[in-house]
This record gives sequence, C-alpha cells and structure tokens, in this order.
Amino acid sequence: MKFNIYLETRRALIDHALETFFVERQRTKEGPFAILYEAMHYCLFPSGKRLRPILTCAAAESVGGETQDVLPIACAIEMIHTYSLIHDDLPAMDDDDYRRGQPSCHRKYDEATAILAGDALVTEAFGLFSEARKKMNISAETLLEIIEDVAMACGTSGMIGGQHLDIQFQKKGDDEINYPELEFLYIRKTGNLILAAITSGAKAAGGTPEQLKALLRYGENLGLAFQVVDDILDMADNYKGPIAQKKVSFPSILSLDEARQRSRELASRAVEALSLFGEKANPLRDLAEYVVERKE
Amino acid sequence: MKFNIYLETRRALIDHALETFFVERQRTKEGPFAILYEAMHYCLFPSGKRLRPILTCAAAESVGGETQDVLPIACAIEMIHTYSLIHDDLPAMDDDDYRRGQPSCHRKYDEATAILAGDALVTEAFGLFSEARKKMNISAETLLEIIEDVAMACGTSGMIGGQHLDIQFQKKGDDEINYPELEFLYIRKTGNLILAAITSGAKAAGGTPEQLKALLRYGENLGLAFQVVDDILDMADNYKGPIAQKKVSFPSILSLDEARQRSRELASRAVEALSLFGEKANPLRDLAEYVVERKE
Repeated sequence: MKFNIYLETRRALIDHALETFFVERQRTKEGPFAILYEAMHYCLFPSGKRLRPILTCAAAESVGGETQDVLPIACAIEMIHTYSLIHDDLPAMDDDDYRRGQPSCHRKYDEATAILAGDALVTEAFGLFSEARKKMNISAETLLEIIEDVAMACGTSGMIGGQHLDIQFQKKGDDEINYPELEFLYIRKTGNLILAAITSGAKAAGGTPEQLKALLRYGENLGLAFQVVDDILDMADNYKGPIAQKKVSFPSILSLDEARQRSRELASRAVEALSLFGEKANPLRDLAEYVVERKE
Repeated sequence: MKFNIYLETRRALIDHALETFFVERQRTKEGPFAILYEAMHYCLFPSGKRLRPILTCAAAESVGGETQDVLPIACAIEMIHTYSLIHDDLPAMDDDDYRRGQPSCHRKYDEATAILAGDALVTEAFGLFSEARKKMNISAETLLEIIEDVAMACGTSGMIGGQHLDIQFQKKGDDEINYPELEFLYIRKTGNLILAAITSGAKAAGGTPEQLKALLRYGENLGLAFQVVDDILDMADNYKGPIAQKKVSFPSILSLDEARQRSRELASRAVEALSLFGEKANPLRDLAEYVVERKE
C-alpha cells in the first residue's frame, strides 16, 4: 500500500518533468518539427512502469538525496530507454506492432519517423544530461562521469551490442544457446541501462564509493531478475508479434519454474547487497520485490 | 598546394584518432560485438572529406589552439556525421545503396545492423565527448557546454528535425517549396552540425566571445554554401538512388547558375566574417574556397 503511493508519486514527478521537457523545447522552437515532437511524446506517454527513472530517484534517496534533485537525469534515462524500444520494435529488428498497449511508433506514424524519433530521444537525452547542471546541485565533473557511464552502458559493448547479439541469437535454435550466453546477452541488452540508472542517481546525490559498490551489486542482480521476469511475461503476452513468441529466452532454455525460481534468487541477492543501508533504501528493497512479482 | 598538405595532415591525424577509438574499445571488450564494431568502422572508413572534424581543428587553430588538443571532439563530431549518413541511407529514409563510393551500411550488412551501428556511433560519440577531459586540457564546464551545443544542433529542432522535414518535402513537388523554406530545412539538416563542429573546436581551445561570434557567422554561411554545392554535385552523381535524383534541392528551385552564384556569395560572406582574425585563420579561409570549388 505505502509502496504503491511511493511508485505513484515518483511516476507523477517523472511524468511532469518529461512534459516540462516538451514545453521548454516547443515554446522556443519553430513549428515544422511538430510531428517529430508528437511522435516522441506519443512513445514516452502513456507512462508505463517508469522503472528505470524511479530506480534513479530511489538510488539517490538511498544515499541521502531527494527525487527532486535528480529528475533531469531520471528523465534522460527514460528517454534513452524509450528510444531503444522504438528502434527495437522496427520491422528490421523485432517487428513489434504494439508497445505499452498502443500501436508501436512505426505503426502509428511511419518507419522514417520512428527511426528519427528514436534518434532524437537519445540525442536530446544527452543534451538533458549536460543541461542538468543548470537545474541541479551537481559538479560538472560528476555530470561528465554520469554521461560517460550511460554512454558506455548503452553503447556498442552495452545495450546496443546486446540488441545486435539478440537478433543473431534469434536466428539460432534454443539448443544452440546456453544459459551463460543468454545471461551475457541480457546483462548488456537490459541490465546495463538499469545499472546505469541506479549508479547515476547515486552519483548525482553524492553517494560514497562504498555505497556505489553495494548499489552496483544490487543493480546487477536486479537487472537480470527484471529480464528473467520479462521473458516469463512475454511468453503469456498475446500482444507480442510472432518473433517475440518464438524467441530464445530464459524460460525457453530453463523451464518456466526454474526461471521463476531464478528471478526470486536474483531479487534476494539484490536486497542482500543493501545491508549497509538503513531505511532510506526501503524503496530499493520494495522495488526488487516489485520487479519479480509484477504482472506486466 | 600548401592547403592540400594541410588537409592531408589533418585527415591523417583524425583518421589515426578514430582508429585509436576502435583499438581502445576492442582491446578491453569482448568479441561478440565484432560485427557491430566492424560495421561502424566500415562506415567511418574509407576516410571521406572529413570536412567537419577538420573544421573543428581549424577553428581551434584560429583562436590559438592546436589540432592535437581537440582531436577527441573532432572524432566525436565525425562519428555523429557518419551515424546521420547511415540512418539517412536506410530504405525507409533516402534509400541510398551507395555511400562514400562503397555499398551503404544496410546493403553491406543488413538493416538491423545499420540501425544499430548508427545508434552506436551517436552514443559512443557522446561518450567520447565526456571522456575527452582525460585526454585534453579543458574544463568540465566547457565540455558540458560543447555537449549541450552538439545535442541541440543534432536534436529534434536541428539535424534530425531537418532530415524529417526533408522527407516530408520530398513528397511535395518543387513548386510547393520556396527558397526560404528550403534554406530553413538545410540550415538544420546540414548547417547546424557544421556550425557545432566549428564552435566546439573554438570553445575547446578557449576562444573569446568576440571570436566565437565571428566564427558563428563564418559557420552559418559556410554550412549553407556547403549544402548548395552538395545539391549541385548530387545532380550529376550517378551513384545516387532515384530519390536523390528527383529530390527538391537548391538547383531544382533556383537555376544551376543561380545556385553556383549563391554558393560563392555565401563563401565570400564566410571569409568576410573572419576579418578580425590574423593568418591563424587562413585554413578556415581556404576551407571556404575548398567547400565551393570541390568536385565531390
């Protein structure tokens, strides 16, 4: 109950900050880019879980910061996540017609607009990071470190590399992929950005090296738990296209029961990693349970 | 002759710095992303004109800096330019089969790899900007300002918006687009990144506000001159796909002679803007002539 209120208030703050981004950009800019802004907005809203930006906020709180302090960073993280979904949904990639309960970007608009809306979201996200120094009490050095972390997490050897590997894996059969290979892929495809969401919140709020180390262990386990559950949910999701249904995934390599068991183990390890934190880390603890018990 | 040597030495330095990026990334990274790194490398080399990173170097020199000081920034600019070419060439966009004298990325690899190689180049570029503080004598504040400038130049109301507008314009006929509309589009699609290449070099090398103001005027005129000449050359380029041949462009709205005339006027204005600079700005002056007289 109390945690539900926590989630709702964080979502409201994040959604409001994302809306502000559009208001600030469009107020001072010309009208010819209206469709592109609209497509970006369409994909960012309806709101979705907002798991990654909430993790940024909760990580900041765990080291003594406030959600308000890290909102620009949380928004940039969500924009990067959304761009990755838009591009992953493209016909040349996973070919998904639906996303967040509505037609995917290239179905609602067209492929060119979807490619460009994704490009714009990632570019504007990096702009938002660098602008953040005007809105947050943060040193320029720390901000550059966060940008570097995020670029690494989402780069060729991170999220983008993971997606590329996933496409290659989908061309193989289940019996050609083993569990360590799949884990390797998912740590990059999904885990890295979740981890960067957590560490950037903590760094922005002045976390100590010891705290960061613990949050790193929390994030590694949480990111993988999240993906295992995502795979389990994908199996039952009628909205998904044929590729998503057939795909190599945790429950296709493990059994469904083993996959559920594995996700709970990972979430427990995530919580254990928080032992040095007091009750300020309770939202992070609740988020670990939320990630494995969620139904969507 | 002397200017040719200038171009060649700058190109060699930039190419070497770009190669170093791959060596540094691949040495410490796992092998599974080899195809993606290869696709990024394939698109960055063969070298091309390297106009934008050379402008970064020449702008740094004009305010008393050295090419060596701004190489990470010059490389990041070239990576952003290359990403934009890869995505623009996609079937859903301009549908170009050739680029820089070789099959375009999606023709050499596949569409998914081309989308992701582009995504990776822009992401790694922002990573390179933020890493630059370790290799360059530059303040974190200035670096953040440069990142913000570049993100704005390449964002929704900049390069990406310009490309989106271009696609919409191509669906109309010549008689529905007027010269100011086309100029508006090109300032965003091409001009903004050229301008950001120049100002980021000058800012990184400690240019004064007065110098930056002059370079801004130089860059605005040069960027537009470049695009007018690009359109003239496109008309005669057999490699280009059918869309490029038919497209709404400066010489399709103006006459070919008027377009040539316009490009020379713009280049003259660019050079005039440099009046407060001494001979350290000679490479910038020569570059203005090079841009309008080039044959490719």
